[in-house]
Amino acid sequence: MLIFPTRHTTEKMAATRILGVDPGSRMTGVGIIEVKGDRVVPVYFEPIKAGSGEFTERLGIIFSGLQQLIKEYKPDEAAIETVFVAHNAASAIKLGQARGAAVCAAISCDLKVSEYSPRSIKQAIVGRGGADKGQVQHMVGLLLGIKGPIQSDAADALAVALCHQHTSQTLARMAMMQQA
Amino acid sequence: MLIFPTRHTTEKMAATRILGVDPGSRMTGVGIIEVKGDRVVPVYFEPIKAGSGEFTERLGIIFSGLQQLIKEYKPDEAAIETVFVAHNAASAIKLGQARGAAVCAAISCDLKVSEYSPRSIKQAIVGRGGADKGQVQHMVGLLLGIKGPIQSDAADALAVALCHQHTSQTLARMAMMQQA
Repeated sequence: MLIFPTRHTTEKMAATRILGVDPGSRMTGVGIIEVKGDRVVPVYFEPIKAGSGEFTERLGIIFSGLQQLIKEYKPDEAAIETVFVAHNAASAIKLGQARGAAVCAAISCDLKVSEYSPRSIKQAIVGRGGADKGQVQHMVGLLLGIKGPIQSDAADALAVALCHQHTSQTLARMAMMQQA
Repeated sequence: MLIFPTRHTTEKMAATRILGVDPGSRMTGVGIIEVKGDRVVPVYFEPIKAGSGEFTERLGIIFSGLQQLIKEYKPDEAAIETVFVAHNAASAIKLGQARGAAVCAAISCDLKVSEYSPRSIKQAIVGRGGADKGQVQHMVGLLLGIKGPIQSDAADALAVALCHQHTSQTLARMAMMQQA
């Protein structure tokens, strides 16, 4: 008798890499995780340091730095935090540009970019939308089995990637339940 | 007797194309001018319509739309307005992202991007930093010999390109005077 693997079994076998990005005009956090069934492992977590040079130069560093990492680590999906608030209009425009550069780097490598609000990321990682930054970073380390400190922008990027994985998994389960 | 052309004569012969960009998350103005000696002619002036779809999709339209125009019209230099103000933080972040997408499109095509403040653009076009939008658009039409109305974002983009041309010419003249 020939048994075809169920969708669940197939999912367990295929590995998916998720790129999370936490954009910033000086430091853009990058976190890549690999999901294989129920196992999630960190693949890469470092910030891209855009330095303090001319602003367009900094955007170029973010854009090409992220493109290079995408080509090297070949993620299948990308996730980024939505941003709505900033200290003032000038910093909002700077942050926006960094985010635009990051999104364009992903799009130019044919990656679909999903967006998550800070609240939904905290909810996915800590279980509480009002959790503080420290709690999120602590949970990221625990969930991914990373010992020692993680650079804070890279930790935030890993949190976005984990939130995307969590959301995708929940959606997939819901779809399966509807099919059953 | 062999006469070598002076720098001024050489400049008169070579044509330079300047791309001006006026970024916006719904409409990104694009204006390309060609400078040949003292003659400046419009080459292209239209907005890229990013539509009202998902925001990352809109950024993709700006990024790839601008890349396509750069490949088609092959400008030598690019100029973009600096932005510091917006109605609120949310619109500042949106505008910033559109600007980031535009800058990255130019950088990814190996174009150097110069930045000009709204005040210096008005000063270059109208001669007054406090000039209103209508005056700038009117002067753009006059300077480039464009009859009939110009779409406002495209007119602003042409204004940035003209400001860059004006600034480059002034700097070149100053360099020549220092050499003389």
